Amino acid sequence: MAEFDWIDWLRERARESAARPDVGLGIGDDCALLDVPEGMQLAVSTDTLVAGVHFPPETAAADIGYKALAVNLSDLAAMGAEPAWFSLALTVPEMEWDWLRGFADGLLELAKEHDIALIGGDTTRGPLSITVTVHGLVPAGQALRRRGARVGDDIWITGSPGDAAAALRQLGGPMQSMKLRHRLNRPTPRVQAGLALRGLAHAAIDVSDGLAQDLGHILAASGVGAELDLGRLPVSSSLLDFFPDDDARWRLQLAGGDDYELCFTAPASEAFAIELAMAQLGVSASVIGHITAEPGLRCLRPDGGELVLEHAGYRHFEAHVH
Amino acid sequence: MAEFDWIDWLRERARESAARPDVGLGIGDDCALLDVPEGMQLAVSTDTLVAGVHFPPETAAADIGYKALAVNLSDLAAMGAEPAWFSLALTVPEMEWDWLRGFADGLLELAKEHDIALIGGDTTRGPLSITVTVHGLVPAGQALRRRGARVGDDIWITGSPGDAAAALRQLGGPMQSMKLRHRLNRPTPRVQAGLALRGLAHAAIDVSDGLAQDLGHILAASGVGAELDLGRLPVSSSLLDFFPDDDARWRLQLAGGDDYELCFTAPASEAFAIELAMAQLGVSASVIGHITAEPGLRCLRPDGGELVLEHAGYRHFEAHVH
Repeated sequence: MAEFDWIDWLRERARESAARPDVGLGIGDDCALLDVPEGMQLAVSTDTLVAGVHFPPETAAADIGYKALAVNLSDLAAMGAEPAWFSLALTVPEMEWDWLRGFADGLLELAKEHDIALIGGDTTRGPLSITVTVHGLVPAGQALRRRGARVGDDIWITGSPGDAAAALRQLGGPMQSMKLRHRLNRPTPRVQAGLALRGLAHAAIDVSDGLAQDLGHILAASGVGAELDLGRLPVSSSLLDFFPDDDARWRLQLAGGDDYELCFTAPASEAFAIELAMAQLGVSASVIGHITAEPGLRCLRPDGGELVLEHAGYRHFEAHVH
Repeated sequence: MAEFDWIDWLRERARESAARPDVGLGIGDDCALLDVPEGMQLAVSTDTLVAGVHFPPETAAADIGYKALAVNLSDLAAMGAEPAWFSLALTVPEMEWDWLRGFADGLLELAKEHDIALIGGDTTRGPLSITVTVHGLVPAGQALRRRGARVGDDIWITGSPGDAAAALRQLGGPMQSMKLRHRLNRPTPRVQAGLALRGLAHAAIDVSDGLAQDLGHILAASGVGAELDLGRLPVSSSLLDFFPDDDARWRLQLAGGDDYELCFTAPASEAFAIELAMAQLGVSASVIGHITAEPGLRCLRPDGGELVLEHAGYRHFEAHVH
């Protein structure tokens, strides 16, 4: 197929999936033109997925498309920003119609769900990789940031971490859980949760490189430390089935990446409001520890012993980084 | 070197090269936070450069960094948008300090020149490629678009096209012009010219895939045709030296890519104002033809004969596309 056919086809599909009045000009000129409402700040983030590094090359095209947008929406979620627009830089070894259609299906399914409009991009030839740049809107001064955690804050996590890391661990092995694999391929960006947390949370981050490492960014930015109660770490039944050993599982949950859950801190006085807001959204959220004045991260087993991590998270350059 | 060291180093360098008060939050959180002034539209564009496709792998790192931003600035120029911010998605096979420093030198040299702030990105491991997303600002309703060309308009080009294509043609051969190579490696984004053309030009595009093809986009979007006078096509002395044959040179100038000059149309009544504005900026600009009611593009030799192009421009998928 010709490259212009692909662009034309994608433009039509993009229009169907999200038609926003704030897009003055979408795909098809040298730039897109966009209207930012008064009083709103623009939130921008970029993430790249490279075949063989961020996903196994044999991953279904639709899953790759879905995930390329999901990991970026997750960054908007972590700031409490409402998704608005995204651009797509797609590098593919060849223009295969079936692959491209599958990729667009996964990408635009998620775009439609979050009413985020594809406003432009670039399709190039080369080793498979996808860079998405997302744009969101947040009332000026209300964005959730990494800094802002205070001593005594509860530490929260949405969902249950570790499933994606477990799926990665199982890849190519004899035992593979389809449920875990789905969590790796189709992470749920916690966009609505992020919006609900504005005004409630003191600090937030999305967990892409492992809970310990990403929480570590909050601690460093806020100049505080933390204690995690490993016994309170939520765990999916699939993860428990496949990784019954506590220490091994906790390591996966703390140091594995690709969760795309939100980790945030909030004063205990807001705990009820947060429970309520998350319940209304159907998002599980759990308190897993608290912020301490003493720097560093301590992970405490239910018996009071400390679990020491060799690596706080993904070696960054082995995975994606922010 | 560790990946975090690179990010920290780059953040410091980025701050030095462009410190803008409209950056509420730059590199270092899940998103950047940016302020768009009231009455301004946001212009966004994304371009990817892949090693071996868009530049020879042996190209100097500083030239790659320079060009990655230049080709994106060129898209802002074509819309008449003022550069504001950019994000960088950099995929590299390994973290080599010398290469990264060289890359950043070229990138930030140009960023400083145009006061455009690096506000975030993603560094990943994989085959070398660079995706830059640029953000510019333009008064609402004043952006230059591809559509808008009217019958009788003059067709203009800044600079002289064909130098980059000539350098590509010479690559690996016995005769290589350093001047031409410089035009390939360090194209000049015509940002100031684009700003000056607001209110003067009817339509504009930047020439990345060849003058004939990119002018073709203006014609298609505007529902018009064009006649080019090949005898009026500006030519650099280097290009003339190396490609003395008229037809061969014209083909290079019309169908070669990577010029990053602005092609625009304007009524003859604005010709003097445009001459003056370009002269004040020290940018050469030439009338090379006019818009016709009859669709299609005709390229006329000085003797009145027509030059027929086999390909209007780069085969898109062989090069970058918009």
